[in-house]
Amino acid sequence: MDNLALCEANNAPLTPITFLKRASECYPTRTSIIYGETRFTWPQTYARCCRLAASLLSLNIAKNDIVSVLAPNIPAIYEMHFAVPMAGAVLNPINTRLDAKSIAAIFRHAQPKILFVDRNLETLARATLHLLQDKEHLNLLVIYIDEPDCPKRVSSNELDYEGLIRTGEPSSSLVAAMFRIQNEQDPISLNYTSGTTSEPKGVVVSHRGVYLSSLSVIMGWEMGTFPVYLWTLPMFHCNGWNLTWSVAARGGTNVCIRHVSAPEIYKNIELHGVTHMCCVPTVFNILLQGNPVDMSQRSRPVQVLTGGSSPPAALVEKVQRLGFQVLHVYGLTEATGAVLFCEWHDEWNRLPEKQQMEMKARQGVGILALADVDVKNTKTQESVPRDGKTMGEIVMKGSNIMKGYLKNPKATFEAFKHGWLNTGDIGVIHPDGHIQIKDRSKDIIISGGENINSIEVETVLYKYKKVLEAAVVAMPHPMWGETPCAFVVLEKRTTSQGDCDDQFMTREADLIKYCRENLPHFMCPKRVVFMGELPKNGNGKILKRKLRNIAKSLVVNDDSTFGIKL
Amino acid sequence: MDNLALCEANNAPLTPITFLKRASECYPTRTSIIYGETRFTWPQTYARCCRLAASLLSLNIAKNDIVSVLAPNIPAIYEMHFAVPMAGAVLNPINTRLDAKSIAAIFRHAQPKILFVDRNLETLARATLHLLQDKEHLNLLVIYIDEPDCPKRVSSNELDYEGLIRTGEPSSSLVAAMFRIQNEQDPISLNYTSGTTSEPKGVVVSHRGVYLSSLSVIMGWEMGTFPVYLWTLPMFHCNGWNLTWSVAARGGTNVCIRHVSAPEIYKNIELHGVTHMCCVPTVFNILLQGNPVDMSQRSRPVQVLTGGSSPPAALVEKVQRLGFQVLHVYGLTEATGAVLFCEWHDEWNRLPEKQQMEMKARQGVGILALADVDVKNTKTQESVPRDGKTMGEIVMKGSNIMKGYLKNPKATFEAFKHGWLNTGDIGVIHPDGHIQIKDRSKDIIISGGENINSIEVETVLYKYKKVLEAAVVAMPHPMWGETPCAFVVLEKRTTSQGDCDDQFMTREADLIKYCRENLPHFMCPKRVVFMGELPKNGNGKILKRKLRNIAKSLVVNDDSTFGIKL
Repeated sequence: MDNLALCEANNAPLTPITFLKRASECYPTRTSIIYGETRFTWPQTYARCCRLAASLLSLNIAKNDIVSVLAPNIPAIYEMHFAVPMAGAVLNPINTRLDAKSIAAIFRHAQPKILFVDRNLETLARATLHLLQDKEHLNLLVIYIDEPDCPKRVSSNELDYEGLIRTGEPSSSLVAAMFRIQNEQDPISLNYTSGTTSEPKGVVVSHRGVYLSSLSVIMGWEMGTFPVYLWTLPMFHCNGWNLTWSVAARGGTNVCIRHVSAPEIYKNIELHGVTHMCCVPTVFNILLQGNPVDMSQRSRPVQVLTGGSSPPAALVEKVQRLGFQVLHVYGLTEATGAVLFCEWHDEWNRLPEKQQMEMKARQGVGILALADVDVKNTKTQESVPRDGKTMGEIVMKGSNIMKGYLKNPKATFEAFKHGWLNTGDIGVIHPDGHIQIKDRSKDIIISGGENINSIEVETVLYKYKKVLEAAVVAMPHPMWGETPCAFVVLEKRTTSQGDCDDQFMTREADLIKYCRENLPHFMCPKRVVFMGELPKNGNGKILKRKLRNIAKSLVVNDDSTFGIKL
Repeated sequence: MDNLALCEANNAPLTPITFLKRASECYPTRTSIIYGETRFTWPQTYARCCRLAASLLSLNIAKNDIVSVLAPNIPAIYEMHFAVPMAGAVLNPINTRLDAKSIAAIFRHAQPKILFVDRNLETLARATLHLLQDKEHLNLLVIYIDEPDCPKRVSSNELDYEGLIRTGEPSSSLVAAMFRIQNEQDPISLNYTSGTTSEPKGVVVSHRGVYLSSLSVIMGWEMGTFPVYLWTLPMFHCNGWNLTWSVAARGGTNVCIRHVSAPEIYKNIELHGVTHMCCVPTVFNILLQGNPVDMSQRSRPVQVLTGGSSPPAALVEKVQRLGFQVLHVYGLTEATGAVLFCEWHDEWNRLPEKQQMEMKARQGVGILALADVDVKNTKTQESVPRDGKTMGEIVMKGSNIMKGYLKNPKATFEAFKHGWLNTGDIGVIHPDGHIQIKDRSKDIIISGGENINSIEVETVLYKYKKVLEAAVVAMPHPMWGETPCAFVVLEKRTTSQGDCDDQFMTREADLIKYCRENLPHFMCPKRVVFMGELPKNGNGKILKRKLRNIAKSLVVNDDSTFGIKL
């Protein structure tokens, strides 16, 4: 047995860049990318990526160099997901919603060699570079990406994206080398976490990790061949949950859009027969508010993968009625994308719709790429009973987990303590094996020694018909230490009348009364703050950190019954 | 980047045994196995495998030891696909249709430590052991598997399968160790090739290889969660094309049957709502001849994966009308199962049915686990043009390819020459990327310098309505070197009248005439031999070797026009 050596024929490194060559060979006439009037086939996308990779190499990009990109969901950022690793480099997609200061901080940390910038983000890029100019000595080459149909705006000595593709000369030996990465554990992407609870950290993911994660999405979502995939989720968010690579693996069509708005979404669904899309639950509100189109004539609903935060059951119910079929997943940048899928059991179709939606709001079961996933008591490190009640931290291990945080051994050590990725998310395991998140460990509100799950309170608030968005955080309380404080966005019709102060007070009292009818009293918010919109990060995640800061300055509306009822 | 070390959290070996623990945790109430009156759930199957593995360890089974099994598709052989590798050993499933002499040859070569034997195959096992007794000093422990509902037949000092499961004591640390294999490149199974064209060889496949292959079947077949899988394909054949592991990965139900007959198949489809099954094309004849049941009331057709040989288009058409949906795959033991899938394009539904069936008879495109697949000119090693015409050898590389042949460095070297697995199969690549096999390199008939694809001639013969089976091989020809000779099985109604010699001659002339109307003359068989059945190996593959031996002794019915028409 031991005499059987590995060789070129039987030991190819696992990397998603093989998906691209395969797509060009197995699906030669299929459309790879649609973007406005622009269309590419898979052989064209393959050729463009080979040319771009060749140009990168001619710009002296070396192994493990970092190539950053600041762009929305345009074809260029899709192509870079293949071309950059083909050149042996590491892709660093930047959240376009960050400000110059935050991006400068990333550049100082990551030290990229090249920055690709969408022309529409030139101002942001220049502001960022300006911040870096005085102190740092970054040797950063900036390359702009112009719209395919735009007249060439670059000055003669400025490099541009299409120019690199035009001039790239991939010899056959160069192309062969591109597909022969040395080690599947090599880094492929550097993804800065959105930092809802802490400072951004640079997550390094490997070829092996994203290969396994890309296949896991295909299996977890049961995504067949030739999906028409609408890019509503930013590719800079965890490499678009790896769909950048999965769509190539399935020979699908990428429908790229620059802006995520209801008209854009509905128009593209109609025009191109979109079958699949991913988004955070807040996009459901966009779908609901923006003149929903009747999609009931379509033969199949649009499959929607959602995650980032728990989709409120009421919201899922509404959006499914429009013709979307929602599958809820749970992921982390550190776990290279989605790792729990709420796999549907056909018997659940017989449950009342409300209960179905509650099933759908659970995070689900681990993907096949995970070696193990568990919920553990944070003190004893023992597995919690699978009773749907006992809470613990969600932990996991597997080859899809990140390599670690760039230049941050302390954070890497903490993340991997006890031989697991410690997610910091608090959850339970139900008897049927599905994991449900109860809270981020930092979002737990501890009131009089009782743990309060902010998500549980939010779920009740979302069921109040006028509530569009709700977030609950801890506010200080003189007697109980902490107590819940709710931040709520009401539907537009209602908020436009809400300028009058005494009406406002009425409504706060209404909501508190409603919560007390539907929750244990100690779990009810003592204050409700109405907002025009909730503060969110670039990925649409609600920034509870900011809400906690507001809550700190608020006064508790105490009531005499509170202490007694506890 | 280079400071990021691998650790337990982010570097788990890829092995299909994780699918079993996951199934027991994620699908705790789902039925894992149905076998007559026997039912197991996934937690029960998991517990039984842990116990069996513990017993194997207590029998001093060590890493890389070989554990053979001689059994049809009963639950025990399914469980052994997990339990044997959990104990660190290598499973060696034996083809039950082999004779004692062939099995003895395998044992001499593989030197197994334990042999598990289905009680119904006791005679075969004893005959095999008898052959080994005189010369060999095998230290082989034999353990019998009795039917679950049978009274215990073992004598007091004989070990039996259920006894091992009863007495196995898996401590938690032992179980943890079972799931912590040291290296994903370790062997998991030793599968002897069926040897249609040469002597049997022992193919060693790895944990990594079968992990990737199991997932590839799920994706290639688009097999969703909770399939009800009918075991019509023997598990001893390439580990049941890896479905042993894929069904666990999907939380499906294994319907085990001892005998593959039409009544058994239709009964189990009906009883258990079978959704998926695999088989060689010859099983289609069983389905067609054995009182086909009307399955049109079923909401969905039974998905059938077929391979081993090209399914004749006419046969696919007939079996699809019965309510089966056929997907054609191409695989090799050396490539750890199915590697080409004939992925369906929806546009093909608009083609005439005949043409659809021709599309379906092509082998298809490479699985995602392959790093590359190509068709190469065997002399120049250059890729053939993708024109659907130019023939070459099908070659492939990837982590799913076997580790090599056990104790056969020469054959291993030959198989991996030029850095590819050389399949020995001759094919073309169509412009749409699909590969089609034209022949086994040894099955090509070379007549007057022209290559004749035996499959092409067989395809024409199969379209003759009375032909049930056809195989074409080379027979010696004084002028042209070789010429095709056809072996044909006619439908039963016809063959029962075929004892009269002059009727027989008529029919041979009929078929030759029919071929000349439908093929270039040089490709037409010069002799047609009618048989009651064609010689086949244990997997249902037609043994062309045997037919070639018969053909050698036949006389050519030459005709004067032959030379002229060429």
